[in-house]
Amino acid sequence: MISALTTDLYQLTMAAGYWRGGLLGSATFELFVRRLPDRRPYLIAAGLDEALTYLEELRFLDDDRAWLRQLPQFRQVPPAFFDDYLRTFRFSGDVWALSEGTPVFANEPIVRVTAPLPEAQLVETVLLAVIGFQTNVAAKASRVVEAAHGRPVVEFGARRAHGPGAALAAARAAFIGGCAGTSLVEAGRRYGIPTSGTMAHSWVQTFPSETDAFRDFSRLFADSAVYLLDTYDTLRATQRLIDSGLKPSMVRLDSGDLDALSRQVRALLDAAGLRETKIFATGDLDEDRIAELVTAGAPIDGFGVGTMLSTVADAPALSAVYKLVAIERGGEQLGVIKLSPGKSTWPGPKQVWRVMENGYAIRDVIAAAAEPPIANALPLLERVMTNGRRLAPSPSLVDVRARCRRLVGTLPASMPVDISPALEDARLNASRYTSKRDAT
Amino acid sequence: MISALTTDLYQLTMAAGYWRGGLLGSATFELFVRRLPDRRPYLIAAGLDEALTYLEELRFLDDDRAWLRQLPQFRQVPPAFFDDYLRTFRFSGDVWALSEGTPVFANEPIVRVTAPLPEAQLVETVLLAVIGFQTNVAAKASRVVEAAHGRPVVEFGARRAHGPGAALAAARAAFIGGCAGTSLVEAGRRYGIPTSGTMAHSWVQTFPSETDAFRDFSRLFADSAVYLLDTYDTLRATQRLIDSGLKPSMVRLDSGDLDALSRQVRALLDAAGLRETKIFATGDLDEDRIAELVTAGAPIDGFGVGTMLSTVADAPALSAVYKLVAIERGGEQLGVIKLSPGKSTWPGPKQVWRVMENGYAIRDVIAAAAEPPIANALPLLERVMTNGRRLAPSPSLVDVRARCRRLVGTLPASMPVDISPALEDARLNASRYTSKRDAT
Repeated sequence: MISALTTDLYQLTMAAGYWRGGLLGSATFELFVRRLPDRRPYLIAAGLDEALTYLEELRFLDDDRAWLRQLPQFRQVPPAFFDDYLRTFRFSGDVWALSEGTPVFANEPIVRVTAPLPEAQLVETVLLAVIGFQTNVAAKASRVVEAAHGRPVVEFGARRAHGPGAALAAARAAFIGGCAGTSLVEAGRRYGIPTSGTMAHSWVQTFPSETDAFRDFSRLFADSAVYLLDTYDTLRATQRLIDSGLKPSMVRLDSGDLDALSRQVRALLDAAGLRETKIFATGDLDEDRIAELVTAGAPIDGFGVGTMLSTVADAPALSAVYKLVAIERGGEQLGVIKLSPGKSTWPGPKQVWRVMENGYAIRDVIAAAAEPPIANALPLLERVMTNGRRLAPSPSLVDVRARCRRLVGTLPASMPVDISPALEDARLNASRYTSKRDAT
Repeated sequence: MISALTTDLYQLTMAAGYWRGGLLGSATFELFVRRLPDRRPYLIAAGLDEALTYLEELRFLDDDRAWLRQLPQFRQVPPAFFDDYLRTFRFSGDVWALSEGTPVFANEPIVRVTAPLPEAQLVETVLLAVIGFQTNVAAKASRVVEAAHGRPVVEFGARRAHGPGAALAAARAAFIGGCAGTSLVEAGRRYGIPTSGTMAHSWVQTFPSETDAFRDFSRLFADSAVYLLDTYDTLRATQRLIDSGLKPSMVRLDSGDLDALSRQVRALLDAAGLRETKIFATGDLDEDRIAELVTAGAPIDGFGVGTMLSTVADAPALSAVYKLVAIERGGEQLGVIKLSPGKSTWPGPKQVWRVMENGYAIRDVIAAAAEPPIANALPLLERVMTNGRRLAPSPSLVDVRARCRRLVGTLPASMPVDISPALEDARLNASRYTSKRDAT
């Protein structure tokens, strides 16, 4: 469970301010990404399940409140804020969101939250961290999986993740994005993701000879054993494995020129009649390296990818933001925008429409939520939570993954994203409103 | 608590193999970073406290074992592995480590683990994820703090971290590296780090006017209030704040040309007699941007840094590895190495000596642990755990942070790191040994 104090301090000072000022009317925030990272034609929505669990379970425990009230910043905040408001605090809002696994583009809301202002504000920090990270990993995984052209990609990045929690979230998001499995056992247990593993160099080093190391491993793991070949010399190890008389189902290459080595290893294996033995490659792989190997025709049957998935090393943070778009004022929902240079937004709650033609997506339209349906288009944001309760359990991860692959297959190379005329008008009106207000 | 299944599958298959083969003798692994990231002259060791807690608490619960034994990979593993070995599994090893906050360089062990082989192996994944990430963040924080030349830097990155766990670890590591505080309330509670916060644009947007927004905030947070100026227009907001008659202790700039704006805002404040009001700057800052602002003489009194600290966006993963360096064979500890291209290691347990001259560090020497002391040098690795129990509680984080700043002040611009002659000899001998073995 994520503690209620897992938030930025200003969310709590603002909550106290809203509470004190009686500003408990409803507000709408939208979570979206301002710009896609370089060389990422789409993102893949992910993390919603964890986000909804957080919203359902959010509570200020006695310890949380006791700690908060002694902070110097809260000295002037009346006791009732802690003893009444925070003690009974629940997230009571409504949430609309893209289903996990949905391809998404810049400025399109991934999650839209409507709740009493302090509730909607307080959850910003966790929603951004959870949705932002998992959406980023799922997108990277999808690109890596595309590059592998049908060869399975296994996520191996736990050791390079930003701690154990990040490792777990990355394994789940990578599976949504199309990975075939993970090395992280806890992710297998918790999410039902297929787990896979081979052997480490330390295994080989532990035995007096590589042959002993391979034979010993085969005693316990005959069918599932994957033999690591590069501890000393890949080709000699291959020959030793062949000479040992084992019938390996798979071998692993982890260093050196993977293209050349895979061909040499393949030739040795084939010459020994081990045509069924598969070759698995690991070692600082990403979508570019994999595409090169696949294009070159390297006889590699599967890839293990670590750092590039679990940290999204080429773009480790999305420009994800969570912006106030509407606020109740005088019983009316008023669209609001921010005018900071380079950071302006469109006012009001939105819907994203994906326009389809012959089964392919041809463009997206971001429209005001209240606009009528757009012809031949699917609305992507769905209501997933009402009054703080989930409307349905999350779909199975296997289904989420399959749907993601299918939807990615419908995308053009570059997706046009339009803003509906009504939404553009609303932005202009809001700007005029703000300018007029500025002058007063 | 970190589940025992938070590890790569191969750690568990190898553990079963070692157990089955009776390979329960002691082994030594060292955790080190192969190469420093670009433009990072040093790293700062961090994460040890969490790592030691993990080692002390590591248990295979009933559910862990039940789940593991049904995995297809474990079909042939005898039940006693689960019912006896894993049920009573404890980490019983010895650990030597650098104190948190110690500057460290490539190839220098940060942690050295000596334990029965399966225990030492199993913990690799979590040790790498925990130490690797926090060491990376602490190093980045130290560089950012150096750039700020005495102005406080506050870590604001929770929302961009790789999930809530990563946010917490990043806040702690950034404090070790020299940050003055964090925005993450849970990090304040758990680690005693000073928390700070301002207001969000949404606060300003919620009120009919900026003046109302500022006044309302001041009612509850008079002394600690930090006023955000860039929601609509920074200079107009400054004027409104002045006209409101409030006596702000601090204002925040979050967009635009921070150099120019800070001078203009400073001039407006000074002209209004608000010379005590400090200016705090945020918005995609890193050590380069901060150094530019400081060098230009921008009147900025403190910096908030987010993404660059919580994700170390320019180098989100270290090349941290955990390598077998010695193994008991026939009652004797035998140094081992790996010869994979570009990944070779030095054999045997090591010590790192920091050679000092007039209070300044002039070079490091990586030596075999058994070598005699080096003149005028401090041994950096200390014993922190014996038989799976910590020898002492971790020092206070405030002391760790102060020691880190002091040690960073003793470093040369570029640190020479030598390998002791005895260790180089040992590597050559191990290579010859391995080559001879290869030929058999």
